[in-house]
Amino acid sequence: MQAIIVLLAALLAMPPATALGNDRDRTAAERILEAALADHHAYHRLAWLTDRIGPRITGSANLEKAIEWATEEFRNDGQENVHTEPVAVPHWVRGKETARVVSPTVHPVVITALGGSISTPEGGITAEVVAVDNYDELKLLGEEVRGKIVLYTRPIVRNGGREAGYGSAATYRVTGATEAAKLGAVAAMNRSLGTAAYRLPHTGMMRYEDGIPKIPAASISAEDSELIQRLLAAGEKVTLHFELGCRNLPMAASANVVAEIRGREKPEQVVILACHFDSWDLGTGAIDDGAGCIMVMESLRIIRAAGLTPRRSLRGVLYTGEENGLWGGKAYALAHAAETGNIVAALESDAGAGAPLGFGVSAGAGAVELLTEWAAPLAVIGADAVRDGGGGADISPLKPYGVPQIGQRQDTTYYFDWHHSMADTLDKVDPDLLAKNVAAMAVLGFALAEAEETVPRLPEALE
Amino acid sequence: MQAIIVLLAALLAMPPATALGNDRDRTAAERILEAALADHHAYHRLAWLTDRIGPRITGSANLEKAIEWATEEFRNDGQENVHTEPVAVPHWVRGKETARVVSPTVHPVVITALGGSISTPEGGITAEVVAVDNYDELKLLGEEVRGKIVLYTRPIVRNGGREAGYGSAATYRVTGATEAAKLGAVAAMNRSLGTAAYRLPHTGMMRYEDGIPKIPAASISAEDSELIQRLLAAGEKVTLHFELGCRNLPMAASANVVAEIRGREKPEQVVILACHFDSWDLGTGAIDDGAGCIMVMESLRIIRAAGLTPRRSLRGVLYTGEENGLWGGKAYALAHAAETGNIVAALESDAGAGAPLGFGVSAGAGAVELLTEWAAPLAVIGADAVRDGGGGADISPLKPYGVPQIGQRQDTTYYFDWHHSMADTLDKVDPDLLAKNVAAMAVLGFALAEAEETVPRLPEALE
Repeated sequence: MQAIIVLLAALLAMPPATALGNDRDRTAAERILEAALADHHAYHRLAWLTDRIGPRITGSANLEKAIEWATEEFRNDGQENVHTEPVAVPHWVRGKETARVVSPTVHPVVITALGGSISTPEGGITAEVVAVDNYDELKLLGEEVRGKIVLYTRPIVRNGGREAGYGSAATYRVTGATEAAKLGAVAAMNRSLGTAAYRLPHTGMMRYEDGIPKIPAASISAEDSELIQRLLAAGEKVTLHFELGCRNLPMAASANVVAEIRGREKPEQVVILACHFDSWDLGTGAIDDGAGCIMVMESLRIIRAAGLTPRRSLRGVLYTGEENGLWGGKAYALAHAAETGNIVAALESDAGAGAPLGFGVSAGAGAVELLTEWAAPLAVIGADAVRDGGGGADISPLKPYGVPQIGQRQDTTYYFDWHHSMADTLDKVDPDLLAKNVAAMAVLGFALAEAEETVPRLPEALE
Repeated sequence: MQAIIVLLAALLAMPPATALGNDRDRTAAERILEAALADHHAYHRLAWLTDRIGPRITGSANLEKAIEWATEEFRNDGQENVHTEPVAVPHWVRGKETARVVSPTVHPVVITALGGSISTPEGGITAEVVAVDNYDELKLLGEEVRGKIVLYTRPIVRNGGREAGYGSAATYRVTGATEAAKLGAVAAMNRSLGTAAYRLPHTGMMRYEDGIPKIPAASISAEDSELIQRLLAAGEKVTLHFELGCRNLPMAASANVVAEIRGREKPEQVVILACHFDSWDLGTGAIDDGAGCIMVMESLRIIRAAGLTPRRSLRGVLYTGEENGLWGGKAYALAHAAETGNIVAALESDAGAGAPLGFGVSAGAGAVELLTEWAAPLAVIGADAVRDGGGGADISPLKPYGVPQIGQRQDTTYYFDWHHSMADTLDKVDPDLLAKNVAAMAVLGFALAEAEETVPRLPEALE
């Protein structure tokens, strides 16, 4: 009975389609925009998640507390099919962290272990430092690397894009220890992947390779990296002492959190709204990716509260274990492999809550045009630009199944100032911009689930 | 003989004064500008001071090493009357520093002890927090303060000036512990006096008052202050645990460093070029005030190297012990009290090495006009604006003797982002802007020592 009332309400609320084609969605879009921008409900939710729960690294009690909280919140919002889907995740814990240059002069070095790193021996490691910008330079050093600490010094540039931004240097953080170990290095460090200089260390995932010795890996602040580079450039031999007490514990239990608005016509067809719910341990994960998860929760809340029930199902998924290896995303794709033909699109936000700019899409031919039409009502908040290419880490395991990948785009001018650092805290989020981001996700998400047409799929790429 | 050659060279280099009045100084100014802007000598000197010697808190071996280095450098530059003048300085050392919110949730808090603070008892202090913006709010709380930690939350604003900048909140850092202790508080904390939010704690001086209980005092990061404020605003009782291991040791020996270019006509008349050579312990004191001291050293070097010997003596003084109470400045004024009638002006730089804007002067009537004339050649680098009111901490003890006070002004847009924090490091200084600052100090310093007229003195205010 209730379902019929909701359906009637939704139908009554929508004027019939006209020659302009999408007045029906526009009206829904207008109502969503109005609701999303009406208050700071999203911000208050994010405040609870970050202030009252806090950092949410996998394996932590905080992450599981957050999962319980979100499940409860989804239920309180009246969502359907609210449940968790178990995922095993890594359990890495930070320990003691100290470092200093011990010659030619003594300087404290601000250091933070990379997620997944082994510890140093008790008492630490003291060794000479060699600095390289990239793997070509590392290979040129060859045998000179043996017994030393390799420091990857490549800086990243604000709004540097593919050439000079985060992506251009992250590889040295992820695989730098392995490449250094191949040449006999005793440790790997990298200049923090950050775009500001406030002696702030940025953590992030690193990965070991089977058969290659595991060596400790850490980030040091931009300032400390530059100090070491200046001393080396002056011809000095630079020796560093450091100690890390981090540990890898047995895999822990975690879960993806799922909630739905069941579709009124084709409930078996699904649009996924995605984010990752885990964060690093240093900050409270407000921008990475608490904000994205609040967008998902609030999109469903607002659409339901407005009495809008789309043609297809809208499914929010708060993925676990993204930061250290997409554990939630991979588990989800595996568990839902049989259903992927019915997942008509996946839309993720994982770049903070700067001003929403629009979307990027990786899908079949014609996707940009379709999304451009559906995103048009977001012009009022400047979030209507759709470009080719986009997606999100957690939804990427659905790509081989052909699921269209959509990434929500934000102004990320300051994102990498705080990303993966202890400065990723609530104050970095502007309540009005967060509300606009909720509006952007909700409007496009609703359109994806409501429109008669679906986004052309990607070619399947499964073996 | 050498003095005569120098004198002749200086005279030959200066065309005779014309109807325009100061062509002689203009030409000297042009030569000084050219020399200062020709290379990055100043920057390399600052790099040595900060990278090779490092932080220079009073009582540290580093500060005394820096004093030896500067003395040696002055001698290598061929300066006259190079010597040190002993000053006893406080010896405060930082120890263990940990803090966390323990209820209503657990959060690490980034904390740094204030210079001069006593330690907590071993094992730390756990107490409820009360937050106030100012002393009026503190007094309104009255008995509610007893047994609690007082958190001064007043933020400072970028380029906020007297109303909302550093000066508007520094009093809570300096005397906050005493005012809180008067009401029975167990500790005082303040929101870091910084204009950026990168979870960066800023230290600085605090002072106890005789007869008032001494309680530990520290700064916490802006983010942590805001977190606590949000929890309090939500009606929560917030409890903090923290531990500080800092200690006040017996006074230590230090010194002001002095070097001169002896005047060619009236060597007994002196223009002081000033800075402070000590820094806080967290960063390497590049902007506060390594840069100012390099300006002093380089001004003398460039003027001498250009063969310019002014009418009066130019005296560089690198003051010790400024940060925790003007020890060097006070000792200097006392020791030189008999000479102060011959100190015709004192010019200090202690606000970093942002783009030089000009000068502020506190002196007798007509001083602004005189300085405006002398600073005119600095228009080419935008450093010619002279305004009423200015000076510097280290030269302020000369004020009661009537010595004209001149402060070199810089663009300080970012200065308080890094000031007193571990991010006060060399990379915050632009080599070109430092060179321009050297030019500004050297040109005005030379003019002050060369001009026939002297700056009108302040009325003497000695009891």
